[in-house]
Amino acid sequence: MQIGMMGLGRMGANMVRRLLRDGHECVVYDINPASVEALVTAGAIGAASMEEFVGKLTKPRSAWLMLPAAITSRIVDQVADLMEPGDIIVDGGNSYYHEAVDHAARLALKGLNYVDVGTSGGVWGLERGYCLMIGGPDSAVQHLDPVFASLAPGADAGVVPAAGKDAGTAPFGYLHCGPSGAGHFVKMVHNGIEYGVMAAYAEGMNILKSANAGKRQRTADAETSPLENPQYYQFDIDIAEVAEVWRHGSVIGSWLLDLTAGVLKADSGLTQFGGRVSDSGEGRWTLKAAIDTGVPAPVLSSALFDRFASQGESEFADKLLSAMRYAFGGHVEKPKTGS
Amino acid sequence: MQIGMMGLGRMGANMVRRLLRDGHECVVYDINPASVEALVTAGAIGAASMEEFVGKLTKPRSAWLMLPAAITSRIVDQVADLMEPGDIIVDGGNSYYHEAVDHAARLALKGLNYVDVGTSGGVWGLERGYCLMIGGPDSAVQHLDPVFASLAPGADAGVVPAAGKDAGTAPFGYLHCGPSGAGHFVKMVHNGIEYGVMAAYAEGMNILKSANAGKRQRTADAETSPLENPQYYQFDIDIAEVAEVWRHGSVIGSWLLDLTAGVLKADSGLTQFGGRVSDSGEGRWTLKAAIDTGVPAPVLSSALFDRFASQGESEFADKLLSAMRYAFGGHVEKPKTGS
Amino acid sequence: MQIGMMGLGRMGANMVRRLLRDGHECVVYDINPASVEALVTAGAIGAASMEEFVGKLTKPRSAWLMLPAAITSRIVDQVADLMEPGDIIVDGGNSYYHEAVDHAARLALKGLNYVDVGTSGGVWGLERGYCLMIGGPDSAVQHLDPVFASLAPGADAGVVPAAGKDAGTAPFGYLHCGPSGAGHFVKMVHNGIEYGVMAAYAEGMNILKSANAGKRQRTADAETSPLENPQYYQFDIDIAEVAEVWRHGSVIGSWLLDLTAGVLKADSGLTQFGGRVSDSGEGRWTLKAAIDTGVPAPVLSSALFDRFASQGESEFADKLLSAMRYAFGGHVEKPKTGS
Amino acid sequence: MQIGMMGLGRMGANMVRRLLRDGHECVVYDINPASVEALVTAGAIGAASMEEFVGKLTKPRSAWLMLPAAITSRIVDQVADLMEPGDIIVDGGNSYYHEAVDHAARLALKGLNYVDVGTSGGVWGLERGYCLMIGGPDSAVQHLDPVFASLAPGADAGVVPAAGKDAGTAPFGYLHCGPSGAGHFVKMVHNGIEYGVMAAYAEGMNILKSANAGKRQRTADAETSPLENPQYYQFDIDIAEVAEVWRHGSVIGSWLLDLTAGVLKADSGLTQFGGRVSDSGEGRWTLKAAIDTGVPAPVLSSALFDRFASQGESEFADKLLSAMRYAFGGHVEKPKTGS
Repeated sequence: MQIGMMGLGRMGANMVRRLLRDGHECVVYDINPASVEALVTAGAIGAASMEEFVGKLTKPRSAWLMLPAAITSRIVDQVADLMEPGDIIVDGGNSYYHEAVDHAARLALKGLNYVDVGTSGGVWGLERGYCLMIGGPDSAVQHLDPVFASLAPGADAGVVPAAGKDAGTAPFGYLHCGPSGAGHFVKMVHNGIEYGVMAAYAEGMNILKSANAGKRQRTADAETSPLENPQYYQFDIDIAEVAEVWRHGSVIGSWLLDLTAGVLKADSGLTQFGGRVSDSGEGRWTLKAAIDTGVPAPVLSSALFDRFASQGESEFADKLLSAMRYAFGGHVEKPKTGS
Repeated sequence: MQIGMMGLGRMGANMVRRLLRDGHECVVYDINPASVEALVTAGAIGAASMEEFVGKLTKPRSAWLMLPAAITSRIVDQVADLMEPGDIIVDGGNSYYHEAVDHAARLALKGLNYVDVGTSGGVWGLERGYCLMIGGPDSAVQHLDPVFASLAPGADAGVVPAAGKDAGTAPFGYLHCGPSGAGHFVKMVHNGIEYGVMAAYAEGMNILKSANAGKRQRTADAETSPLENPQYYQFDIDIAEVAEVWRHGSVIGSWLLDLTAGVLKADSGLTQFGGRVSDSGEGRWTLKAAIDTGVPAPVLSSALFDRFASQGESEFADKLLSAMRYAFGGHVEKPKTGS
Repeated sequence: MQIGMMGLGRMGANMVRRLLRDGHECVVYDINPASVEALVTAGAIGAASMEEFVGKLTKPRSAWLMLPAAITSRIVDQVADLMEPGDIIVDGGNSYYHEAVDHAARLALKGLNYVDVGTSGGVWGLERGYCLMIGGPDSAVQHLDPVFASLAPGADAGVVPAAGKDAGTAPFGYLHCGPSGAGHFVKMVHNGIEYGVMAAYAEGMNILKSANAGKRQRTADAETSPLENPQYYQFDIDIAEVAEVWRHGSVIGSWLLDLTAGVLKADSGLTQFGGRVSDSGEGRWTLKAAIDTGVPAPVLSSALFDRFASQGESEFADKLLSAMRYAFGGHVEKPKTGS
Repeated sequence: MQIGMMGLGRMGANMVRRLLRDGHECVVYDINPASVEALVTAGAIGAASMEEFVGKLTKPRSAWLMLPAAITSRIVDQVADLMEPGDIIVDGGNSYYHEAVDHAARLALKGLNYVDVGTSGGVWGLERGYCLMIGGPDSAVQHLDPVFASLAPGADAGVVPAAGKDAGTAPFGYLHCGPSGAGHFVKMVHNGIEYGVMAAYAEGMNILKSANAGKRQRTADAETSPLENPQYYQFDIDIAEVAEVWRHGSVIGSWLLDLTAGVLKADSGLTQFGGRVSDSGEGRWTLKAAIDTGVPAPVLSSALFDRFASQGESEFADKLLSAMRYAFGGHVEKPKTGS
């Protein structure tokens, strides 16, 4: 079937390629003409403007937006102005699900359908397929089924589902989760979990790396707690090898562990990374949802706050702790570079 | 080769069956004669006492203990008394790695080898193979290689390693991690990570389950914060379906998620579970190692403390919070059953 | 000066009494006539309706609302409809500061002043005075200065300020923190800190209470980690006495500790409390502000999430953990009542 | 009465001065002769060696050690070798309570008494008095009562106890908590709470400081979540003033807040502090006790782990998170200095 794709970055471009492979007709647009050109070469139909993009779509039009969260909302409105009742706008980006709820209500007044699709799979999605979490009106979601089926991994990927399509579409890697907003809600929580799982591995690996602490000299002064039993911390663990062995038969095997093992095999010291970890929004939103609904999420929040700290945002709090220690005990901290 | 197995519970018995399948000779012992009998039927050589068990082993003897952590230490000493220089004792249980370090030092004085093997795989290990994390002297570990190779998943399991055996044994699912204690240390951290990963999924699923909070009536009194934007919490998410779809192409795919999807498919309300979560030691020890070595582990500790709380251990602290609230603000809490 | 007070619950009524003591004229209103009557007896001027309440105020009118957060917003609008340019509405309740920002902008269009006052002091405020955190336009805040000065503890309370009034009003217990919203923002963070401080004491006391764990029998099975060194947990600590001693010269002396010592002295087992801890909004909002601005707040969030858990909201997550444990390891949890 | 003091650092020297003021006879020793000389000038009896120190004590001898935790254990044994049955060794330092339990058992075999005294009050103790948490045999503790009474704040300090001495010694600032080890146990938990309380203030202040986030320019790219509602983050809060106002009538008033207000008044930017926060042992031990006894302590552990992170110990974990993000999503982190 025909689908329009707007926003041809890493994710959008790969999705078009995957759709073209399955025989779909793709109309593509991006503010960067080179991105359009590259996909035209691959078989897509290019557009030079948003108007041309919408104009080349056949009714009922389906325009899939794959844009940075910060600008999606504005573009949705612009595209909506060019569309007609019965048309469908799909937001496949990492937008806040609140916007999907709001857009859907507003667009419904014009007779437009709004479908939010949480898309997981990263740079591997082109080959592995994308896991799709979908929210929106039944008819629009049903209309787009062939597109979802092509983007998703399908029954042949990874673990083969026991049941056939009678068991629903989840075993094929896509799911209609509920009304508009439900797709981005589920994707949001997916990413919240992702933060927690990643942090669990990272903390564990960090502990493994410190298993030789007993071999290191540790200052024994009033500001430092001595290591009580150095004989228990004499291990030089090869964490790249450990990551590899855990992939085979352990309880904590996962795709993230597969990637981690690959990364550590290539560079076990991780020298190319600086230690500043970004967060792109979903972790924050997941926590807000937990707070709104009164659900405890100590693990997910710890993972998020560690990222904030890695961005330097605990510095003032830490200075204040040192200031208090100085005020009540006369403690003078060691310099920061002395860690 | 020949191996003795003592402790024929869920784990020990399955390991013997897997070894027998690969043609190894297994001498087995358990205080429960029925457990011995069952494996004799399957081809093992039974023993009726610890003495007979050791007596039937050929030198250099290899005795693998698969016992509860609480009694392992005592049995190690008893078996050691029956053994001779060059013999090998393997502890495959969930023992504290400190004990491995101590046992190894003590047994070395008698010329005995102590090998600690962290064993992951649970009830699925019989079919999938066990992931083995090994600590001990090189010669003893080398001697036991055929046993490890049979217990581990091997190259045909799950993800096929790219490299051959030249790349080491990790791709086959077993790894010599270092001297005595290193195996249990790595397994300890493995379980610490397991707690964190499990909690990440559980918290996320709990948030998904609360996505319909806007539909529920919420009391609006001075003791309860009203839900600000109920329109954003109108989703009835089918979490069993979500668990299934995440298995296909998402970033958080894992074996634990595979199991979770299976569990939720069978009983999405989890009515057979009471909400009390045990912890069997490794999570605690992981945290102690983090504390000893000064490594931050907020995610792993949050996961552990949630289990403590599920065991009722935050009750006094919570009562004290209510008491303080009453003391400064006259707040009278709602009854516990009113949640 | 004259001030109107609407909402004569625990907080509002006591504030009126404190103002009357200092010679202010108080016009009071509440939907419950008995509450009005009680204060009329004490010297206030009563009103039988909102209209009468506003009518009895002299221009520029100052109406202070002390209402539950859930209804404040609606009442603000009703009162505003009865007022005239130059009049002042004060919200002294635990409202979300977002509302103050929004109300102030909306009311400014009508020429009305909006002042938000975070009020701390609880049931003790009548005698001790209330700590006031104030947001709003300079002129309106300046106009209300005599009221603030009377409600606040003043220079004679607790710790005497070194500097005179030249040093600002903070030493007297009230502070103009910034434009509308700033008062409730600072009060919100105050309560967020309160949650953290309370939890720190509660967790510590809970650990003290467990100092005799080595005397208790602990099951030693595969589902329970044995206590390693029972000889170190043989203390029966009298926590009421400990709370008392910490009040005198220790680093952690505080007003909350004073109250805690009193509570424990009266009932060291806290038998009248059930263990369900409410949260009234500010803790949640504090965390949302931290998340919005990327500030790590692991301690404050842990304190909040413990309250959620005490309300029973971790139950589903815990069941899921048990379900996973059963799925991979065949672990059957002990019954919940077995804690 | 007579008391010997060994270790004349910040704490030990001030304690001697406070004892001299109350008319006690103090025999003092330190490896630094200048420290001895200073106190001799103040009225103490000096000793030039450990032997002379013990020799100048009258039987039953009472030797109070005020030494760094790392060397206390060794010195205890040396002093014990010079003493006779009935003598008393007091450890007033920040030693691990395990050592007190062990020392007491060993010294009891020689007829010596071991008393562990947790001492809080910091550099202010000389004037305010020290809060003393005491463990040891009844007779020895009773014997030292006059010393404890002089070191502690006494009934005239801070909050005057309602009851007389019949109510026990806690209102005077010292408490016999139990057998040997109980004093250091209670002090350990005191410090654990201290970490939590300090972190609660520090996190809250950090949030206040970010209340103007809406005024700052924030990059809007795929790696950064945009600030949703900048209009709610337009406050420039004077946190020094806020700390001051909270001291007067608020729920979170405390001695630590008094100190914090002083620190912020002097230097609200805390420019003299680097952001590296030491931990001297008790926080770690508190967590280990919580873990051993299965008590949830999420707030105290978060506070401890933040200190570890401030020491640079989360760096490898953070790098691993960035590595994973790069592996699955091609995300390239912003440079660390870009925070």
